[in-house]
Order: sequence, then C-alpha cells, then structure tokens
Amino acid sequence: MKNSGYEGRQDGIRTWVTPTIDTFDNLYRDREYEITMSIPEFTCVCPKTGLPDFATLTLTYYPDQKCIELKSFKEYTLAFRNQGIFHENVVNKMVDDIVASIKPRKLKLVGVFNARGGIKTTVTRNYPNT
Amino acid sequence: MKNSGYEGRQDGIRTWVTPTIDTFDNLYRDREYEITMSIPEFTCVCPKTGLPDFATLTLTYYPDQKCIELKSFKEYTLAFRNQGIFHENVVNKMVDDIVASIKPRKLKLVGVFNARGGIKTTVTRNYPNT
Amino acid sequence: MKNSGYEGRQDGIRTWVTPTIDTFDNLYRDREYEITMSIPEFTCVCPKTGLPDFATLTLTYYPDQKCIELKSFKEYTLAFRNQGIFHENVVNKMVDDIVASIKPRKLKLVGVFNARGGIKTTVTRNYPNT
Amino acid sequence: MKNSGYEGRQDGIRTWVTPTIDTFDNLYRDREYEITMSIPEFTCVCPKTGLPDFATLTLTYYPDQKCIELKSFKEYTLAFRNQGIFHENVVNKMVDDIVASIKPRKLKLVGVFNARGGIKTTVTRNYPNT
Amino acid sequence: MKNSGYEGRQDGIRTWVTPTIDTFDNLYRDREYEITMSIPEFTCVCPKTGLPDFATLTLTYYPDQKCIELKSFKEYTLAFRNQGIFHENVVNKMVDDIVASIKPRKLKLVGVFNARGGIKTTVTRNYPNT
Amino acid sequence: MKNSGYEGRQDGIRTWVTPTIDTFDNLYRDREYEITMSIPEFTCVCPKTGLPDFATLTLTYYPDQKCIELKSFKEYTLAFRNQGIFHENVVNKMVDDIVASIKPRKLKLVGVFNARGGIKTTVTRNYPNT
Amino acid sequence: MKNSGYEGRQDGIRTWVTPTIDTFDNLYRDREYEITMSIPEFTCVCPKTGLPDFATLTLTYYPDQKCIELKSFKEYTLAFRNQGIFHENVVNKMVDDIVASIKPRKLKLVGVFNARGGIKTTVTRNYPNT
Amino acid sequence: MKNSGYEGRQDGIRTWVTPTIDTFDNLYRDREYEITMSIPEFTCVCPKTGLPDFATLTLTYYPDQKCIELKSFKEYTLAFRNQGIFHENVVNKMVDDIVASIKPRKLKLVGVFNARGGIKTTVTRNYPNT
Amino acid sequence: MKNSGYEGRQDGIRTWVTPTIDTFDNLYRDREYEITMSIPEFTCVCPKTGLPDFATLTLTYYPDQKCIELKSFKEYTLAFRNQGIFHENVVNKMVDDIVASIKPRKLKLVGVFNARGGIKTTVTRNYPNT
Amino acid sequence: MKNSGYEGRQDGIRTWVTPTIDTFDNLYRDREYEITMSIPEFTCVCPKTGLPDFATLTLTYYPDQKCIELKSFKEYTLAFRNQGIFHENVVNKMVDDIVASIKPRKLKLVGVFNARGGIKTTVTRNYPNT
Repeated sequence: MKNSGYEGRQDGIRTWVTPTIDTFDNLYRDREYEITMSIPEFTCVCPKTGLPDFATLTLTYYPDQKCIELKSFKEYTLAFRNQGIFHENVVNKMVDDIVASIKPRKLKLVGVFNARGGIKTTVTRNYPNT
Repeated sequence: MKNSGYEGRQDGIRTWVTPTIDTFDNLYRDREYEITMSIPEFTCVCPKTGLPDFATLTLTYYPDQKCIELKSFKEYTLAFRNQGIFHENVVNKMVDDIVASIKPRKLKLVGVFNARGGIKTTVTRNYPNT
Repeated sequence: MKNSGYEGRQDGIRTWVTPTIDTFDNLYRDREYEITMSIPEFTCVCPKTGLPDFATLTLTYYPDQKCIELKSFKEYTLAFRNQGIFHENVVNKMVDDIVASIKPRKLKLVGVFNARGGIKTTVTRNYPNT
Repeated sequence: MKNSGYEGRQDGIRTWVTPTIDTFDNLYRDREYEITMSIPEFTCVCPKTGLPDFATLTLTYYPDQKCIELKSFKEYTLAFRNQGIFHENVVNKMVDDIVASIKPRKLKLVGVFNARGGIKTTVTRNYPNT
Repeated sequence: MKNSGYEGRQDGIRTWVTPTIDTFDNLYRDREYEITMSIPEFTCVCPKTGLPDFATLTLTYYPDQKCIELKSFKEYTLAFRNQGIFHENVVNKMVDDIVASIKPRKLKLVGVFNARGGIKTTVTRNYPNT
Repeated sequence: MKNSGYEGRQDGIRTWVTPTIDTFDNLYRDREYEITMSIPEFTCVCPKTGLPDFATLTLTYYPDQKCIELKSFKEYTLAFRNQGIFHENVVNKMVDDIVASIKPRKLKLVGVFNARGGIKTTVTRNYPNT
Repeated sequence: MKNSGYEGRQDGIRTWVTPTIDTFDNLYRDREYEITMSIPEFTCVCPKTGLPDFATLTLTYYPDQKCIELKSFKEYTLAFRNQGIFHENVVNKMVDDIVASIKPRKLKLVGVFNARGGIKTTVTRNYPNT
Repeated sequence: MKNSGYEGRQDGIRTWVTPTIDTFDNLYRDREYEITMSIPEFTCVCPKTGLPDFATLTLTYYPDQKCIELKSFKEYTLAFRNQGIFHENVVNKMVDDIVASIKPRKLKLVGVFNARGGIKTTVTRNYPNT
Repeated sequence: MKNSGYEGRQDGIRTWVTPTIDTFDNLYRDREYEITMSIPEFTCVCPKTGLPDFATLTLTYYPDQKCIELKSFKEYTLAFRNQGIFHENVVNKMVDDIVASIKPRKLKLVGVFNARGGIKTTVTRNYPNT
Repeated sequence: MKNSGYEGRQDGIRTWVTPTIDTFDNLYRDREYEITMSIPEFTCVCPKTGLPDFATLTLTYYPDQKCIELKSFKEYTLAFRNQGIFHENVVNKMVDDIVASIKPRKLKLVGVFNARGGIKTTVTRNYPNT
C-alpha cells in the first residue's frame, strides 16, 4: 500500500498565517447561548489538480468573553480562495484559528464539499474533543 | 487583534424598556405541556449600516402559572422594527423579557437571520441554562 | 402587566361533555407497540374573534387493554368545529378525554395551528408527564 | 362507552397460516450490522368496509444466523392483498412471523397507512420490547 | 422452511482480493474529527439474475494515523461494477477492507440500494460494534 | 345507468343569497394588471354525508373599475362553513357571485378539495369562457 | 424482430364489461368548467407475471350534461384490482368507458405506473384526439 | 354593496415622490436580453391597520439603453418600509417609477404578499400591456 | 481553435449493432395516446477516461402499429453498460434504433447525465424534427 | 438622475481575450437535437467591491457542425474566477464567445447569481434574438 505523500506538500498549512479574525465583546457573557454561521460560498483550490473546490461551511459555537465579528470572518474565509489546500485541512486549520481568536466554550465546524469524481466529502470537527 | 467595540454602541440594549408582554392564566397549570410560537416576519435594523435585518423567531416554552397572550406578543416584537440591534442581542433581550413576564418552567428561543454578506446567522438560547 | 382574563371565558372547557370515544380490545395486548393518528383537518373557533382556527393534530400512543376506534374518534374531533376554544385548551382537553377512554401506557398529542397575526402556534402534551 | 367488538372478527389473525418466509445464511454472522427493507406497495382490505387499504412498511433488523430472502418476503406480503385485517394487526402479525423465521438480534417494523376518513394511521413495533 | 443456499455461491467474497485503497498521512492526527464520503454512483451485479444493482454508499470515519485517498477509493469501488455480489456482502466486505487499510478510530458505512421487486434495501455497519 | 339525482337536492344553490362582497375603487384602472388571492382554509359540508370538506381556493382576476375588499371576501367564504354543497357547485356559485360584484376583465377560480374515498377533486372555471 | 404476442392474451380487454359509472346532472351545464380527479391508490395485476402493479391516475374533464359520481367511480376502479391488464390498456379502456358514460366536452387521463425492472411507465390519452 | 372608500386614503400614492432609481449604460444594448431581480425582503405598512406587510417582489425586464443600478434600487424599495400602502398600489407605483427611470423594452413585476386573515395576495403587472 | 477529434474514435457508433428491441401490437391503434418510460439507472463508459457515466433517460412516444416491449427495452439499454460512448451519441443512437423498431407517430428522448468536472449535461432529441 | 458610470470601467469586457473553447465534430449533424450544460460552480469578482460573486450558469444549444468540448469549456469558465465583471456582462460576453466558436443553430444562456444586498439577479440571453 503506497502512501501518496500529500502531507509533504501540505506541511505548511498548520503554520500558514491567515488574516486576523476580529471580535467584539459578548454583551450577554453571563448567559450561555449558541451562535451558528452558515457560509454557502466557500471556495479554495485543490493542491493536486489546481482546480477550484467549493463548500458550504457551518460554524456553531458557544461564546465566552468574545464573539466573532461577521465582516472580518468573511474576509478571513476569502483568504482561502486561491490557496491550494485539502478538504480535511480546511476544517482543521479554521478550527484552530477560531479557537485561538475567541476561546469559545465549545465549537463545531462542518465543511460540506461539492462532489469531485462522483464523491462528495464532508469534514466535521468539535472543540473540545467529544 | 482589534476589538471592534460593538458593545459600547449596544450597552443600552439590556436596559431598553420594551412594550409589556400580556399574559393569561394557564387553565391547565396542573399539567406539564409545551407551547411553540413561530414568527417568520421579524425585522429590525443593523446598528452598523442602518439597513434592515430579517429573521424567523421560534419560541418554545413550558408554561407555569401564565401563558403569553398572542396579540400583545406580536406587538412586543413590532417594537424592534426600527431599532438598531445586533442578532445576538435580539435573542438574549427577548429571552430576558419573556422570562420576566411569564416565569416559565423552561424556554428556548431561536432566531434565524437572513444572510448578510453571504453569511446566515442563527442565535439560540435556553432558559434555564442546560 | 394586565392579565387579559381569558380563563374566565374558558372555565367551562375542562368540564365540557364531548362525544364518547369508542374503543376496541387490543388483540396484541401482550406486546408493546405504538399507534400514531394524524388528523390534518381539525377546525374550531377562536373564542375572542369568532373566526375559525385550523390545525393538524398528531396523536401517538402505546395501547394497553384498548385501542381508539377510528370512526368514533373522527366524530369526537368534529364536536370542536363550532366550539370557541383556545389552542392550549384544545390539546389539554383532548389528552384528558383520550386518557379517560383508553388508559394508554403512554401518549403524546401535538396540535400545529395555522398562523394568526403572522404567528404559528404549536401545543404539545405528554402523558404521563416526562 | 361501547366496545365496538372488532376483536371477535379478527381473532383468527394470530393463528392465520401465512406463506413461509425463506432465509439465507448470514455470511458475516460474526459482525453486527443492520438491514432495512422498505416496501411502499403494501395493500390489504378493511374488515369493516371491504375496501382496500394501502401502506408503506419499513422493516429494520440486525441479523443473527439468518437473513430474510427478498423474493420470498415479497411473496409473503402479497398474501395480505385480499385479506381483511386491521392496521394494528398487520404490523403485529408480521413481527411475530418474521421473528419466528429469522430469530434476529433485534427488529423494528413501521406501517404507515394511507388516510381513511381524513385520518392517517402509523403502527410501530420493536422486538424485543424496548 | 428452505434455506435458499446463497452463501455457497458467495463464499469467495470474504477472500476476494480487491484493489488497494491508498492512504495519506493525517496532518491533524492529534485532533479528533470526522470525514464523510458520499458515493451516489455505486453499481454491481445481482448474483442471481445477472442484472445490475445500484446504490448510494455513505462512509463516515474518524481518522487515526491515515486518511483515505479519494481517487484510489473511487477506483476501489469501480472493482464491484461487474462483480456478482449481494447487498449485505457489499457493505460488510467494504468495511473489512477499509478497516484493514486505515485502521480508523471508528467508522460507519451505509449502502442504500435501489428498489428491486418493489423493495428498497439499506445495509448499515459500524466499526467497532456499538 | 342510474342518475343519482344530486341536482334535486342542490337546486337552491344557484339562487342562495350569500353575504355581500365589498369592493374598493381600482386606483390604477387605466392599467391592466392581475390580482391573485389564495385561500388555503376553505371548508364546507358534504350534502350527502354531512361531514366537512376542505379545500384551497385560488382566485385570479384582472380588475376593471373595482377590486375585491379582502376582509369582506373572507367573510363571504365563511358563509359556506356549515353549508351542504358539492365541490362543483362551490366553484361555480363563487364565480357567479364575484363576477356580479366586481365585473372583472377576466377571472379564474380553482378549488382543490382534500381527498375523499382516496380521490382528490379539483374544479376550475374561467370567466369569460375560454 | 419477434412480436411478443401480447395482443392475443389481452384481446378481451376492449369488450370486458366493467361496473357502471354513475352520473349526476350538471347543475351549471350552461357554464364551461373543468373537473380533475386524482386517484393515487390504483392497483391491478400484470398479465405476464401475475404480480400487482400500482399507479396514480389523474382524470381531467369538461362536463357537458352529466358529471361523474365520485363513489361509483371509486367502485369502477376497484374492478381492476385483481384483473390482469397491461398499463397501456388500463388507460385506453378507462377513457372509452368514461366517454360512453358522461359524453364530456373533452377529457384527459394520465396513468403513472410504479417502476418495474427499473423502468417507470406513464400513459396519457386525450379525448377527442388533439 | 358599499364601496369601502380606500381610494380616498390612497389618492396621493400615484404622485408620491420616491427616491431616484439610478441607472448605468447597457454595455450590450445591441443585444436583446432579460434581467430578473428577486427581492424577498420587501416590507411596507397596511394603511388600514398600521401593521407591517411582507412580500417577495420579482422584477423581470429587457433593458434598452439603461440598466437598473442594484444598490440604488435596494434603497428605493426601502422607502416603502414605513409607508402605508395597499398591495395593489405597491406593484403599480413601482412599475410606473421603473418605466420612467429606464424605459425598458418590456417589464414584468410580481409582488407575492404574505397571508393576512388567511388569504395570500399576489399582484402582477406587465409593461407594456399584453 | 483545435478540433479535439472525438469523431474519429466514435465513428463506429452509428453502425454499432445493438440487441433487438422487441415489440407488441398496439391494441388501441385507432386511438392516439402517449407512452413515457423513465429509466433512472442508465450507465455507460466515457471513451476518453474509461470511467463510468450515469444518466436518467426519459422516452416519450405516440405508438402507431407497435409498442415497445418493456423487458427487451431494458436489455437493450444494458448493452451500453460497458460501451465507450459520448453523451450526445447515446441519445442519437437510441432514437435511431427505436424509430427503426416501432415507427412511432412521434418520439422524444431526453438523457440527463450526472455531472462530470462540475458540469451536468442533458441531451434531447425529437422525432420527427420539430 | 445620475448615471453611475459603470460602463467606463467595463468597456474592455467586450474585447477581453478569453481562453479558446475547443470543439468536436457533431457526429449526428444531420439530426436536430439539443444539448444543455449546467454549471453550478461559476464564480467571478464584483468590479465595484472586489468581493466574489457566485452563479449557476445553464447553457442550452442546438449544435450544427460542431459541439462544445466539455473540458475546455470548463477551463474557459475558470478564466472568470478572478476577473472583475458585472452580472449582465458575464452572460453577454459568454454568448458572444460561444457563438463565435461553434456557430450553433440556436442557443440560450441563463446566469442565476447569488443574492447580494438581499437581491438575487438572473440574466438570460437567446441567440438569435427571439
């Protein structure tokens, strides 16, 4: 069984510096509640073929001290538009970046990618691990 | 990472005095049951752009001594029509107001806001915290 | 906060005598199973405005010694057609009547009422309380 | 409250001899897995009116030593086509017959019957009881 | 009750040598996350009639050290195109092959097969058993 | 072939005096445009069985000098709630009444009645005949 | 190219005597309007395999002197339940019978049959020919 | 039959001065093509009750020398947010304003208004009249 | 602009000898009516990549002296399963073959092919040309 | 009424040189038939804001001597990914380019663009003009 060696070409993803995700103070930080953002227009590039990939991202989180500022988050996702990156890494990279920015009580990110070669891929990660 | 300072402009929301939510006595207060009200025509104003926002609100509660009177609740929601207020604060403010009015056994409010900048936001809060 | 005094006008509902719900013996009473009846054509009258209300009722129960006879149950629901009664009371009254008739192991009744004033109301009750 | 006496006319159902449900050996009997069969074309006859009833049946089971052979199961369900039998008894009779044939680890059968008199009935049974 | 003897004609399935499923190293192996692949274009052949069967397969897994390489997985599924094999065995064979290839933390495979003889079959297996 | 003689019992329908349909002056009577009213909550009574019937009515018309006043039209439809009348006659009676009230350029009325005995009936009439 | 000889086995269909379709006088025979009946529960038998077929029939007609009486039409369709007849002949036979019964201004009958062998068949006929 | 006198209270609508609809030059004015704008978030106020109305507007036009500038059109529709105006007049007023602004080859405007009193109203106008 | 030369590799398609499409005599050949066959399980092979293609075919025809025999038509379509052939040629080849077999009054064939490279292709041909 | 001057910034669009659309010879050029390509993953950039736009394009054409080669057409559409261009011009530019490449008998291109500012835009052009 050969290992197709993707990791090598994607090693820099974990340390890639993306635009800042701005925040605003949570006015109801003494309450526990949930915020969901659905982003149906995500696009990036396949690192193997150079062709575009498309996905719908759905982020759900319980804010603590800070909430994600909508417009800067939109700009953050635009940084992936011309970036070569695998589906699995898109979701993992974003979760790490968002957790670093707002330190939420908990969080879930789901990326539903359009079919390629007749196969549709979905990647889901929770924080903290459940 | 800059904090975009929304809180300052929204500080008054928690103390904003909204119209009374009328109630009626729960005829079956010795039974436990659930009431859901779905309000697909909610609108308010974005405090940053001054443009209208639209949402569907879904309130679910277990009444104790009192139930929410439908017509006065409709009028309560109309008070937000020309009010500048963020999505997160709409849901939190309403939960606080309803709990003060009917002291339910439990309650859940979900606000599904129409997409802005290609991002659709949903805010959900339970009472008491779960 | 004024109490709009509905209860007074609806006090008789709990003691209103409705048509009998006939039953038949449960042939498989040594088995535990579930029966669901969905009634999309329920209508009654709003006691405040005199205008008709419409609902879909969904009854789910686990029979013990007896099952509900379909035709007599249909006739039972027709008794509400020209009766002034609030949404909350429709569901509670029916649960009390059905429990008295068949003494089920457990039961759930959901009434989904068409929107009035742009608000759609759903009332749900379980027996016994959960 | 009169008992409408259905049981009498349906007493023979529990002992009615239906066609054999053939089986085949479970090739992966050392694995636990689930099989679902959906049968949208079931029809039988109402014992009161003589008119046809229609249903969608959904059977889910965890096989042990044996699996249900598809074609003989189809023929088994055809035996009900001109049989007078109540909705509740269709589901209970079938569960008893299938359990006798394949002795599954567990099983669930749901029968969703088309509306009669504006009421749609669903009957569900699990084996063993849950 | 006759046993229709399928197993005999399918005995070789458990030892049938299928194409290798290639893998790539999991870049985020210190995180727990879920990957779903949906394959709506699966086809194989019925061993009894020689006619084609069609299914949608949905694979969900939590990767450990390795992930499934998409293109080789597509080719793996193509090996079934002209193979005579029963629905139950398709799902069980694939689960055994995938587990051998990537040793995932957990995995679920669902095969939804198009109706034959008016009956639609779904087969589901989890790893490890739940 | 027997004639079931319905007409006799329904002869009075064409001359039955229903509530007035109020109108308002068409502000844009120098323009040609179309108005559609959809009424999903229509109910009347079957003259043979005495059981309620339910329908969705859809009225489309091109106003000339006058438009239909919404609230009085609602009240007009309520007059059918406890009236015994066949599906075909509901639509024909209404078209005659509306044409008499507003003398539209053209008009179409469609009544889609809920299934009875497993048969769903739709009645459609245009004015003038096309 | 062999002719599979179906006609021989179906020759009697055109002269098969089915139950009478009762009628009632058209109260609005001076108006032109359209009646549609949708029958989602039609079943007959395949003359080659003896297995049941299922279809949804939709009849649309412009009545002249007479309308179809709903209950007798239901009984007419029940005559096909255990009759061996091909899809094409079901629709043609019914059109001939209905035209003979009510002599409509025009008529259309569509039969949508459930898939057999992975092929779903629809048969449509207009009267008079268009 | 009383005339409910709406026109009087709405007489000023035809001469009400609304915000300018900006335009841009049609780059392909030597080609004939069609532009559709769908606006699901329209809201105005009922002149009788003072309560908000909601609608989805769909504008379709064939541009000649000029096209509608999207952002100014959005602002134009916002002028109706707190304006008392009947459904019929919303559509007619807008068609007159758009035709004055861009002089299109042809145009169609459809307003689908949310149900009030259980009746949903749609208003449609074409330019020029067809 | 280069011509990619497909035709050369597909020249034999027009003369490729496929299995016979059997027929049966049209019992109602003195009536004009329409038959539609929908085939959601068509598959063939891409001549450039060797990978499978999938399509839903919908055939509509007005029979003259003969109708298509369902089972032999199914077998005819199976001849394409492992054949390299472009989407456009599948539809054209089939129309030529069916017209030769049954000489229908008119015919339409639509092939809706699953997306490849993010592009979904549909091919439609009428006979005779319209 | 100010003219917002878009044309100036978009003047170069009509003369912008895009990648070649390759063709292949139409094997059935003596037949008239229709080909539809649906492209749900189109993206370009708004020339005013620099933000991405998304659309689904649907091209329908009747080929004459040549057909569009799928893969090169995909690449042609990718040329718009980072191009600033208005919705109206995307559709018109593409139609001019495709007509120049394959000289079809007729053609239609529809671009359905995702909502911006709550307004969803669709642009449609036929060739030749109809």
